[in-house]
Amino acid sequence: MKKVATRAAVPAFEVMTILDRVAQLRAAGRDVISLCAGEPSGGAPDDVHRLAAQAHTARLDLGYTSALGIRPLREALAAHYRSWYGLDVAPEQVAVTTGSSGAFVLSFLAAFDAGDRVALARPGYPAYRNILRALGCEVVEVDAGPADRFQPTPAVLDAVVAASGPLDGLVLASPANPTGTMVSRSELAGLTAWCTRNGVRLVSDEIYHGITYPGDPAAADARGVCAWELDRSALVVSSFSKYWGMTGWRLGWALMPEDLATSIDALAGNVALCPPAPAQLAAVGAFTADAYAQAEARVAEFARTREVLLGQVDRLGWGPVAPADGAFYLYGDLGDRLGPFADSGAWCRALLEEQGVAVVPGGDFDAVGGGRYVRLSFAAGAEAVTAAVDRIVAFQEAHG
Amino acid sequence: MKKVATRAAVPAFEVMTILDRVAQLRAAGRDVISLCAGEPSGGAPDDVHRLAAQAHTARLDLGYTSALGIRPLREALAAHYRSWYGLDVAPEQVAVTTGSSGAFVLSFLAAFDAGDRVALARPGYPAYRNILRALGCEVVEVDAGPADRFQPTPAVLDAVVAASGPLDGLVLASPANPTGTMVSRSELAGLTAWCTRNGVRLVSDEIYHGITYPGDPAAADARGVCAWELDRSALVVSSFSKYWGMTGWRLGWALMPEDLATSIDALAGNVALCPPAPAQLAAVGAFTADAYAQAEARVAEFARTREVLLGQVDRLGWGPVAPADGAFYLYGDLGDRLGPFADSGAWCRALLEEQGVAVVPGGDFDAVGGGRYVRLSFAAGAEAVTAAVDRIVAFQEAHG
Repeated sequence: MKKVATRAAVPAFEVMTILDRVAQLRAAGRDVISLCAGEPSGGAPDDVHRLAAQAHTARLDLGYTSALGIRPLREALAAHYRSWYGLDVAPEQVAVTTGSSGAFVLSFLAAFDAGDRVALARPGYPAYRNILRALGCEVVEVDAGPADRFQPTPAVLDAVVAASGPLDGLVLASPANPTGTMVSRSELAGLTAWCTRNGVRLVSDEIYHGITYPGDPAAADARGVCAWELDRSALVVSSFSKYWGMTGWRLGWALMPEDLATSIDALAGNVALCPPAPAQLAAVGAFTADAYAQAEARVAEFARTREVLLGQVDRLGWGPVAPADGAFYLYGDLGDRLGPFADSGAWCRALLEEQGVAVVPGGDFDAVGGGRYVRLSFAAGAEAVTAAVDRIVAFQEAHG
Repeated sequence: MKKVATRAAVPAFEVMTILDRVAQLRAAGRDVISLCAGEPSGGAPDDVHRLAAQAHTARLDLGYTSALGIRPLREALAAHYRSWYGLDVAPEQVAVTTGSSGAFVLSFLAAFDAGDRVALARPGYPAYRNILRALGCEVVEVDAGPADRFQPTPAVLDAVVAASGPLDGLVLASPANPTGTMVSRSELAGLTAWCTRNGVRLVSDEIYHGITYPGDPAAADARGVCAWELDRSALVVSSFSKYWGMTGWRLGWALMPEDLATSIDALAGNVALCPPAPAQLAAVGAFTADAYAQAEARVAEFARTREVLLGQVDRLGWGPVAPADGAFYLYGDLGDRLGPFADSGAWCRALLEEQGVAVVPGGDFDAVGGGRYVRLSFAAGAEAVTAAVDRIVAFQEAHG
């Protein structure tokens, strides 16, 4: 018998069963509305596709690039930080990566050894904990409920340290997946100060920045607060996937604290060699006025769909629903509407069979309390969302 | 103070100093011949660029693909194994990955836990040991010298086990980097049998398959022997980077043993999400008759350059030179021609300053004996190689 690694036993996502069944039902001719998507539709900005088409038509091939990406893209990202946050970021501080996934792998390897204790909010994006565990880190899940807008707080982190010992890292996401909630500047300042007091490295996932629904769109923090506005020892992780709609391109980046930059460069050269070169060439086109305008138009469409959805939340009759400050998710407690089902996974499977609506059960994001929650993506647009709410209401009445 | 991971202390490559200096010298107007390249020039086949240009012109965006790649590409790879090796491989057994780098990360995570002992030949490609160490595995370097054509053998592996205990894995590369040597079918059979007797998982790096210089080009093993011809419990890793010249595209694959396929799928979804989607779409074009013909023309050009180089090796007056069975490297022992230099690193730096020729010192591939070796890439073509040999001879005479 040959070795199979125990660390490879990553839990399967409940949503995979749902998505497989969606494909089966659609193949059989059923009309299915899917509110599962973790990606915007529409794809990359025109200028990105245009640069890519030009390069490939000219048979331009860069070969391997520098491990941390081509200079023009690192410069464009540095300029983006000046434009959005008023931050001085040098191109040398930007690591272009293979999606935010690549940035997380490099960040976790550079910052944490096996056995190090890294905290993250529960509910949260499951890949954080699965990558950290595969790399041998101890994942410390921090309960983050509706009272704290599903985000960690210094008080809760103090309690975690008191109960189970010191931490080495904290992963924070704002806007978060699955909840869409954000931390304010003062909340983030409280968390960075707590991290510094406790010698904890912050990893700040800012992948949904720019997809936000602020009361005042002109406010300085309207697109989200960058952790580097407060603390340059943080690892900032982001991507072209969400705001620019380039999920499949696998292009992201990290802002590297000074004490980790050399390690990240060396690790990147060994673990990844370089980010995808054709995508790097094309992504320079994400920073044109047209590309920003296309991205903003998509955000405006999300905002309209969100208003439509929030206007109908009362009809659902659920328990607490997370405030969808950003991203394109609504995370809700089914409350009494769970009805006769054992948990939200069973509820979601029945909803799909009976009404042809697919949503993601909360168990994928929260193994403890997620059985009462579901995540609705409103990336599918207002019409789909309205039709889905009608069907969910009918489903709930049938099981009332 | 915040945590900096000790596992992130990846040794810097000596070649990086050389490459930086090449850039400086060229910027200053010096005529420098670089024989450092680990990649063929010329880039992807026309049909790959054509498909990419078509997709981007049509603004086609797949979004996230399946974690293990799009079906048409997995089917094309399965057909490639039938065509080259007469092997029945199902598309479901092929994992498309983000370069061979992505395949190694997933393979090592799926097969080996932290603390597991994985053997590899010294000299060898440094990223194997650096990735394994970053993932917490114990790297067991196996001395592989000229007598064994720089490849591990069952006898040497028996001695390693007797001296230091059982192994969990073996990484094999044929053709190998930096030596270019290959194992024959019977040698590979001996190694797979040894692995099975010893419960050792084989990871077979076949990235240079097809770039080979066989005595009989019509022989069944002319392009290299695939480990799955002998043992389906092996992880086979390969890539579009070398034979098809698509280094920067970051697209590779693994053949997954049955007992690891579920883990690799789940790990891929968490660690990488999916391989680059635009590259996947385009890479289907690598399997046209034209694309194969372009790749074969490049291999024929390598073969001509190799003949030119081997015809001049005597002029260099080095010690043993590895038989360049495949890839595009010549790995040679400088012998007495090391002259007054402390090691081949110093020799290489002086050669670059005095004669404007860049080659890679062996220390990057072998921390023990590499100080006497250098690696010459002959990807640069016959003219560059001939001019470089003239300069090296002049350099050696000046330090004779």
